[in-house]
Amino acid sequence: MHRPRGFRSDNTSGICSEALRALIAANEEHAPAYGEDPWTARAMELVRELVGTPEAEVFFVFTGTAANALALSALCPPHGLVGVAPAAHVLTDECGAPGFFGHGLQLQVLSAHEGKLDPAGLAPFAAQADVHIGKPAAISLSQCTELGTVYSLAQLAELRDAARSHRLRIHVDGARLANACARLGCTTADLALAAGADALVVGGTKNGLPGSEALVFLDPTAAEDFAFRRKQAGQLGSKQRFLSAPWVGVLESGAWLRHAAHANAMAADLAAGAERLGLPPVRAVEANEIFLPLSASQAELLAAAGWPLYFESVWGGYRAVCSWDTRAEDVGEFLRALADVR
Amino acid sequence: MHRPRGFRSDNTSGICSEALRALIAANEEHAPAYGEDPWTARAMELVRELVGTPEAEVFFVFTGTAANALALSALCPPHGLVGVAPAAHVLTDECGAPGFFGHGLQLQVLSAHEGKLDPAGLAPFAAQADVHIGKPAAISLSQCTELGTVYSLAQLAELRDAARSHRLRIHVDGARLANACARLGCTTADLALAAGADALVVGGTKNGLPGSEALVFLDPTAAEDFAFRRKQAGQLGSKQRFLSAPWVGVLESGAWLRHAAHANAMAADLAAGAERLGLPPVRAVEANEIFLPLSASQAELLAAAGWPLYFESVWGGYRAVCSWDTRAEDVGEFLRALADVR
Amino acid sequence: MHRPRGFRSDNTSGICSEALRALIAANEEHAPAYGEDPWTARAMELVRELVGTPEAEVFFVFTGTAANALALSALCPPHGLVGVAPAAHVLTDECGAPGFFGHGLQLQVLSAHEGKLDPAGLAPFAAQADVHIGKPAAISLSQCTELGTVYSLAQLAELRDAARSHRLRIHVDGARLANACARLGCTTADLALAAGADALVVGGTKNGLPGSEALVFLDPTAAEDFAFRRKQAGQLGSKQRFLSAPWVGVLESGAWLRHAAHANAMAADLAAGAERLGLPPVRAVEANEIFLPLSASQAELLAAAGWPLYFESVWGGYRAVCSWDTRAEDVGEFLRALADVR
Amino acid sequence: MHRPRGFRSDNTSGICSEALRALIAANEEHAPAYGEDPWTARAMELVRELVGTPEAEVFFVFTGTAANALALSALCPPHGLVGVAPAAHVLTDECGAPGFFGHGLQLQVLSAHEGKLDPAGLAPFAAQADVHIGKPAAISLSQCTELGTVYSLAQLAELRDAARSHRLRIHVDGARLANACARLGCTTADLALAAGADALVVGGTKNGLPGSEALVFLDPTAAEDFAFRRKQAGQLGSKQRFLSAPWVGVLESGAWLRHAAHANAMAADLAAGAERLGLPPVRAVEANEIFLPLSASQAELLAAAGWPLYFESVWGGYRAVCSWDTRAEDVGEFLRALADVR
Repeated sequence: MHRPRGFRSDNTSGICSEALRALIAANEEHAPAYGEDPWTARAMELVRELVGTPEAEVFFVFTGTAANALALSALCPPHGLVGVAPAAHVLTDECGAPGFFGHGLQLQVLSAHEGKLDPAGLAPFAAQADVHIGKPAAISLSQCTELGTVYSLAQLAELRDAARSHRLRIHVDGARLANACARLGCTTADLALAAGADALVVGGTKNGLPGSEALVFLDPTAAEDFAFRRKQAGQLGSKQRFLSAPWVGVLESGAWLRHAAHANAMAADLAAGAERLGLPPVRAVEANEIFLPLSASQAELLAAAGWPLYFESVWGGYRAVCSWDTRAEDVGEFLRALADVR
Repeated sequence: MHRPRGFRSDNTSGICSEALRALIAANEEHAPAYGEDPWTARAMELVRELVGTPEAEVFFVFTGTAANALALSALCPPHGLVGVAPAAHVLTDECGAPGFFGHGLQLQVLSAHEGKLDPAGLAPFAAQADVHIGKPAAISLSQCTELGTVYSLAQLAELRDAARSHRLRIHVDGARLANACARLGCTTADLALAAGADALVVGGTKNGLPGSEALVFLDPTAAEDFAFRRKQAGQLGSKQRFLSAPWVGVLESGAWLRHAAHANAMAADLAAGAERLGLPPVRAVEANEIFLPLSASQAELLAAAGWPLYFESVWGGYRAVCSWDTRAEDVGEFLRALADVR
Repeated sequence: MHRPRGFRSDNTSGICSEALRALIAANEEHAPAYGEDPWTARAMELVRELVGTPEAEVFFVFTGTAANALALSALCPPHGLVGVAPAAHVLTDECGAPGFFGHGLQLQVLSAHEGKLDPAGLAPFAAQADVHIGKPAAISLSQCTELGTVYSLAQLAELRDAARSHRLRIHVDGARLANACARLGCTTADLALAAGADALVVGGTKNGLPGSEALVFLDPTAAEDFAFRRKQAGQLGSKQRFLSAPWVGVLESGAWLRHAAHANAMAADLAAGAERLGLPPVRAVEANEIFLPLSASQAELLAAAGWPLYFESVWGGYRAVCSWDTRAEDVGEFLRALADVR
Repeated sequence: MHRPRGFRSDNTSGICSEALRALIAANEEHAPAYGEDPWTARAMELVRELVGTPEAEVFFVFTGTAANALALSALCPPHGLVGVAPAAHVLTDECGAPGFFGHGLQLQVLSAHEGKLDPAGLAPFAAQADVHIGKPAAISLSQCTELGTVYSLAQLAELRDAARSHRLRIHVDGARLANACARLGCTTADLALAAGADALVVGGTKNGLPGSEALVFLDPTAAEDFAFRRKQAGQLGSKQRFLSAPWVGVLESGAWLRHAAHANAMAADLAAGAERLGLPPVRAVEANEIFLPLSASQAELLAAAGWPLYFESVWGGYRAVCSWDTRAEDVGEFLRALADVR
């Protein structure tokens, strides 16, 4: 039976064949526990190559929430302040995990434009340093942003330079990092360099893995003792190879980037189609997320027709997300449904 | 090529076919994220049936460390004291996770015999209640214990009654719960009832799953808000179905219990063989762990021959663990190697 | 030598004679430690009378930061969201203590007017409840507010009713509670009742004590185990009587309220004088804080003349605060200096 | 009326005249808040002189629990293990504060003799380093110990050398540090040097202060950001001078050491008297604590006669403690009561 693939989230998609094959291959024999297995070693090596930093420290964890919160807890003290954009996932969608893992660490909203932090906001942020408010310690940015935009390399570099000049560490939430690389036509290494990330979360889950993010410390000194933190936080799997092998699958084959490029392309098609229908996205579509200018009743009709979308209440628009496995026919069907509710 | 399966840990084994098939089936279509999928609903239902408690609340998490520490943080306040056996995994092998998740919660070692808490120790434990030391809040017991022993139902019930009479909550670390059920010839429901568990961790990872433990609150009021805790702690997977589907695979098929019974049987064979070699286990073998009375040099020779074991430094003995997929020929080869180093 | 008393903060003033006499009296003999002394019993009784709630639970702690953060940690789970005004002291001046004591608890800024929470903001705040953002658990309001305004009893009651209808607990930061009572001409019991405070911090430090706040749980069930929390947080003094006795001094004598009324009266005089000088406060002066419309250069001249003030950067104005011991001549001298820089 | 001073605790005594005079003097004028006052500057200078380390960083906090727990949280990561003696106050009397302030930090009991850590225990402690158990990070020792014994300078140095060779930080709980210095006839600087303390808690409360401990980081790099920690933990007083001035009073006058010597002398007299009565202390009396070999019924009779003592249940003996203000006649009366119950 034919079933269309929806656009509510890129978390509804499954495991890509490259990842699944590797997972099955990793199951052929017994292997040492707790990451001492060859699959984990190979996956770490591949991530180091991906980010172009042989000395980088790589840790696979189960969720983006854990990856981000553990990264911040490693970069910042409990009295640290982390500057974020108003739409930051760490702020709005992680149930206070940064403060929980970081023991009181506070997020502070900085000025941003279309999901991107404004470099000019870092000076006043850093200038607050005082025991009464806390210690400005880091910024956390998302690439792609939660609003579907992508920092250019120049924008990243400007933010990096501002952060460094104020001695702020840099955390990059890259749940959709591959989509950004595909958009920019750059390597992940280029992007990591431009961003100056002290801790970079390389997303896997939304891009064909069963569920895993790679937390990369470009500067290995920032990873000191991190193996302890991961274990204490319940993020060290005993059968770690099943977390690692899918990474080998998508990185060795190039699927990680290819899948993201595909999702971006589908999103561009969807955006173009919506525009033709007189429903131009509320902002430029730069990766795999489109925000559509629907009314609540239009959205209800769409949902009733089998196409539920997520309403982004603060910045407006109903979000449609393309996945690594979105097909042209899914886009076509969706556009027809959209035409019906227009 | 033939490769023997080792005995260093039941974490070195892989995914059983029942679990893998379910995981692959769960990958056929898109599904809602964050546990709203049908696989998760079915897995929760199966676990509720397993524990014989329709109103139980079930949460799948990624690791035993997270399951145990989150359970304790839900049952106990930050100033709580949790009574444990000296060999408790939460005490010796979880890097302080109970205090980390539980915000200062303290473990206190109580008297125990062969890994089992002594019910007589609960009265003095509870009597300490005082702001200077903390509030005795719970006991945490392991079934099977870390020393390879198994509480009888009568022993569990006695401990439960003592705990309840002192208003202590009861946490059961069941990383090897299936092995205990197989040993006792009882249902998991019988065991849960006898133990009076407020929070019961039903182990999956060591028993053929890729990596997942089911945290069950028999008393649903103890699970209030737990969904928030799981999310905040980074233990809510977006593609949750890949955590849940393997549970459906092993529970619907009965493999969960069958695998454990097999591992226990292999352990009994190994123990009998070792005894024949003049190396009787240091204590009764009641589940899938055997502690062998080897000298350090014997153990080194064994390791050199491809059979590394884990040395239990406190209670003595080199630990051999049988897995769900240990074969009779693996036991045979190991015994031959043992004979060589004797 | 004559030294004028400044207006930078009510924390620069010292201990009033009523408090000091009691502290000295408490020093005459040995007394049981850790709050088992008669001074503490008496002080607790007086605070219960003050708030008109015989069953209230009272705890003396050393600082406002600890009082507020411990109160929130007792009222809210780690995944709780606490709604606050943008100017809330817990948000801007306590270095992340709520998240630190509350283990991840998040503050969320709600709409407010002149420092007072808007009751209409509570419905959308409460409606967010979701594991992705957290659980709306409480509101925290300041009386007096940090902007020098005072909620009327009707405003408090409206906020209370809104909070209760959304099952939100209520925390009142009353660092300057006496000033609010003096302003409103009501008893503290009236105020506590109107506010519906689950936890009420009754300020002492700014009002003539050496350093102590009384944390009052009007609903004693909210105080369950709080004695453990206070101890674990390092807020239980062994020579507790020196924390308690000053409370006996200021409450038995009525000085607690009298001092606040005096500070308010001095502030009114200062505001009137500033207005006569063409420098009307930026908002109504309702208690002991005045915000003056000075330029940065005027403020610098004032500081150079011995009258440093604190600049409230977000809402504007240079803050002048009258203390329990501000004298008419201090106000006079300050107004002369103000005239000079005008 | 004459009232004897009891021996239950040195926390039942009050404020010595040197401290009280300074507190009253600090109250004469307004002063800057949050430790920017001259009394605090002077007290910090005096403590630096006391410990013979001009670059030491000094922080006054309200309680020993806070001082110890904050010190450990500054020296150790959340996954740190701290080796302690079985009788350590941080372990048995601080309600889990080290884990609470230190976010999961674990105390581990090491071998000890009469309250003193055994240097030979440090090698196996340090050797455990592994993500499964935690990272051995520090030792915490008490001087005087909780069993009334005093490390000699040679013993301290041996422990220090062992700790340093294993890269363990050193925390000294000096709640009764003055009594140790008096016993050893050495300066506090000598003692600090021998102990190699990274963080040294210099006790004030038990020795005539209203309630304050000085937390000293001998190595200033260990104090980085500590001002933030103190504030976030609710241990920065706004009227800080009332915490600091008593230190000026007891240090400038030499009362800090003199009082401790007096308490020690009284304890020696009490011990000698008890011995004459056939009740020799259960171990050598080296400072101001005596542990008497009483039966429970003897202790009850004593308590009924107005002389309650604290029972040290683990190591045995009823504890009598002499204070800075214990008088010869108090000792005489107590000995007469002791004779009556013998």
